[in-house]
Amino acid sequence: MKADLDRLMLERELDAIIVTGGEEFNPARYYLSNGAQITHGTIFKLRGRPASLVCSRMELEEAAKSGLDVKTDVELGYYDRYKEAEGDSIKATALHWSDVLARLGLSTGRVGLYGTWQINKTIALYRILLAELRAFEFVVEEKATLIEEAMLTKDAEEIARIRSVAERTNAVMELAWERISSLRPDGEYLLDESSRRATIGDVKDFVRRELMACGLEDTNMIFAQGRDAGFPHSRGEADMPLRMGQAIVFDLFPRELGGGYHHDMTRTWCIGYAPPEVQTDYDTVMEAFDIAVEAFGVNKPTHFMQEAVLDHFESKGYATTRSDAATMEGYLHSLGHGVGIEIHEGPSISHLRRDDVFQIGNILTIEPGLYYPERGYGVRVEDLFVVDENGELISLTSFRKGLVIPLKCAGEKAK
Amino acid sequence: MKADLDRLMLERELDAIIVTGGEEFNPARYYLSNGAQITHGTIFKLRGRPASLVCSRMELEEAAKSGLDVKTDVELGYYDRYKEAEGDSIKATALHWSDVLARLGLSTGRVGLYGTWQINKTIALYRILLAELRAFEFVVEEKATLIEEAMLTKDAEEIARIRSVAERTNAVMELAWERISSLRPDGEYLLDESSRRATIGDVKDFVRRELMACGLEDTNMIFAQGRDAGFPHSRGEADMPLRMGQAIVFDLFPRELGGGYHHDMTRTWCIGYAPPEVQTDYDTVMEAFDIAVEAFGVNKPTHFMQEAVLDHFESKGYATTRSDAATMEGYLHSLGHGVGIEIHEGPSISHLRRDDVFQIGNILTIEPGLYYPERGYGVRVEDLFVVDENGELISLTSFRKGLVIPLKCAGEKAK
Repeated sequence: MKADLDRLMLERELDAIIVTGGEEFNPARYYLSNGAQITHGTIFKLRGRPASLVCSRMELEEAAKSGLDVKTDVELGYYDRYKEAEGDSIKATALHWSDVLARLGLSTGRVGLYGTWQINKTIALYRILLAELRAFEFVVEEKATLIEEAMLTKDAEEIARIRSVAERTNAVMELAWERISSLRPDGEYLLDESSRRATIGDVKDFVRRELMACGLEDTNMIFAQGRDAGFPHSRGEADMPLRMGQAIVFDLFPRELGGGYHHDMTRTWCIGYAPPEVQTDYDTVMEAFDIAVEAFGVNKPTHFMQEAVLDHFESKGYATTRSDAATMEGYLHSLGHGVGIEIHEGPSISHLRRDDVFQIGNILTIEPGLYYPERGYGVRVEDLFVVDENGELISLTSFRKGLVIPLKCAGEKAK
Repeated sequence: MKADLDRLMLERELDAIIVTGGEEFNPARYYLSNGAQITHGTIFKLRGRPASLVCSRMELEEAAKSGLDVKTDVELGYYDRYKEAEGDSIKATALHWSDVLARLGLSTGRVGLYGTWQINKTIALYRILLAELRAFEFVVEEKATLIEEAMLTKDAEEIARIRSVAERTNAVMELAWERISSLRPDGEYLLDESSRRATIGDVKDFVRRELMACGLEDTNMIFAQGRDAGFPHSRGEADMPLRMGQAIVFDLFPRELGGGYHHDMTRTWCIGYAPPEVQTDYDTVMEAFDIAVEAFGVNKPTHFMQEAVLDHFESKGYATTRSDAATMEGYLHSLGHGVGIEIHEGPSISHLRRDDVFQIGNILTIEPGLYYPERGYGVRVEDLFVVDENGELISLTSFRKGLVIPLKCAGEKAK
C-alpha cells in the first residue's frame, strides 16, 4: 500500500522517484497526488521524504488538494530553462527536473521514472535525461513497478472507497434486473412501458443514469447479447433489440465520478428462459467459480487458482488457452485481476504469471467464463473480493447469481 | 487530416508507423482505428498501404469496427514469441513486431512510434527495439508528431461530428442558464424549487445528466465561483453554495459518450448582478475576444493573434505572462488551442509557439481571460471555431455571451 513506498524504494535502491505525464488520466499520478484533479504536473519523491508536486499556476488550487508540498513551475524557474532551451519543451523539462532535484537536496543517485505519457515524448525526454543529467541513473522498471507493487495491497481508506463503489454498483445491477423483468414479451422481442421494443442501448442509458445518480461513472460497460457475448470484450450494440432466451454478458465496472476507484462485476442473464446449452455452460462456470474460491489461500501463488479452474474445464472437455493456445472457443482469459484506480491492476490470476501470490489487502476479481461466438453465446460470472486482515477472501459483490430473469408479467398470467 | 497520412509519412521519410499503448485512452489509436472501442491493440501502417490492427482475440469483434485489416496476436504467433522470451512480455512484443512488419513486407526502414503508454514500459520497449530489431531505424518525433499534424485539420466527417457536439453542448448550457435563472434569492444565497440552498454540485449534477441525455459525457467541467474562478483550472467545489453577484467561470468541454470528439466553451456568469470590477474586466475580455477574431487570417501565424490580445491587455494596464513571466494575476494562459479527439490539440495560439499558422480545417478555441484570485474572481469567455473551406472563421458556439443571469422571480416582482 501507499505507506510502503519508502520500503519499496529502499528494496529497489531508489533515491528518488518521479511521476509525470500529460493530460491523459494517469493512475500513478492520481495515486501519489491523492486524487488531485490536475491535468499536468510532476511528482518528485525522495526516499524517506514526503512527495512534492510541481504544477502550472493554472492548476495551483486543485494541486493544493493533494496535501503534498506544491510549487509552481514558474517559481522553480521552468520558463528560464525554456528560454535557455530555445523553446524545446522536452529539453527544458529535463533541465527543470535537475533544478527541482537539486532544490530537494539530491545531486546524484538512482531515480525511477513512472507515469503515463505519449510514447514519443517519453522517449525524447529519456534520451535527453541520459545526455544532460549524467549525475543521475534513471531506472526503468521493466516488470511490475514500485507503484504497481504498492497498489497491489489497499489500505483501509481505499478498501472503504471500493466497498462503497461496490454497494452502489450492486444496487444499480438490481435496478437493471428489475427494469428488464418488468418488460413484456412480444414474440422473441420485449416491449417497454411505452410499447417500444427495448434495446441494449436503452438498458445502457438507464444504467449510466442510475450510476451517475449515485456518484459513479460508467467506463464503457459490456452488455453483449448472443454472438457478441461470445467475444469477452464486445461492448454490445446499442440498437440491437433485447431478445428472449439469449445469453447476455453484463460486465459493469464503473468508477468514482471524475476518476477514482472501481468496482468490477459480471452477470450472465437470459430473459424469460435459458436454452439448455447455455444453462449447462452456466452451471459449469458456476462450478469453476466455486472451485476458484476454494483454491484461495493467503501467500499461495495465484496461478494455482487458475490451474484448478483450467483442470475443471478441461476435465469436462472444454477447450482452454492452455490446452489449445489458438482456440477461439472455450475458456479464453485469465481468471481474475486486481482492481483499484485502474480496472486491471495486480495481482493477475493467470497460468502465464508465476510470480504473483495472494496477499492481505488485495482487491481482486474472480471471473471464469466460456465463449462460443459461433453458437451465439458466451457466459461469464464475476465478483470482486477483498482479502481481509484475517486473510479471508470476502466478496464485495452481493448481487444474486441467477441466470434467468423471470418476466413479471409471466408470473401475473400464471396466477 | 487523416487522408494526409501517406504524404506526411513521405515528408518525414517514414516507411512505417506503429501506434501502440495499454488500456488508457489513446488518442492516436482512437484516430487511426476510426474510433474502435479496443482496450489493447497495435496499429501498423506502411506508407501507401492501408493500416492493420493487431489485437487480442478478446477484442476481435470491436476491432472489426475499425474497418482496418484485423489480425489476432495469437494467429500472428505472439504466444510463441512470449514463450521464446520466457514470459518477458516487453521482449515478446518487440519480436512480435518484427514478425508483423515482415508479414507486411517490411524488412528494413524508418519506423515512427506513437501512442500513449506507461513511461516505464515505453522506455523498456524502446531499448529492446534498438537492441533486437537492428534492421529498422525507430524514429521518435520530439515536437509535433505526424499524427498531431494530421489532426491539425479536420475532414468533413470530423467537422460534422464536432458541430453536432457543439449544438448539444450549447443546448445544455442554455438549460443550465434557465435552471439558475429560476432559482430564488435568499440573502446572498439561492434556493431551488424545494427551498434547498443551491450548490455548485447541484448545477454540475444537472449538467452531467443533461449531457448524458443527449449522448455526451462530461470530462470534468469547471464551474468555479469566487476565488476559485481566479485559478484558470480550478474545477469548483461541489458543496459550495451558489452566491449572488459572484463571478462564476463555467468551462464545459464534453465529448461523445465513451470517447470521441469534443466541444469546448466557457462563459462567465454572475447571478442577479455583477460587481463593477467584474463587469469592467468582463468588458475588457470581450474586447480582447473581438480583437482576436479580427486578427484571424488563413496562413497567418497564430502568435500574431495572441500578441494582439497581449497588446490590448497590457495597453489597459493588465499584467500578462509576457509583461511579467511570474505573475499570478491578469492574463495567464495562451489564447486558444485546437480541439478534436483531445481537448487540447494543435494549433496553439501562444506567443511562445512561433511555428503554428491558421489553416483551413482547423477547429480551435479563442478564450481570453483575466484572473484575480485575491480579489475573489476570474473571467473567461471561450467559443469554438472552425476555419471553413473558404478560409472564414465560423463560430460553433452560438450561446449568448451575457455576464448577468437575471433571476426570473426578480422580473416577476418588477411586473
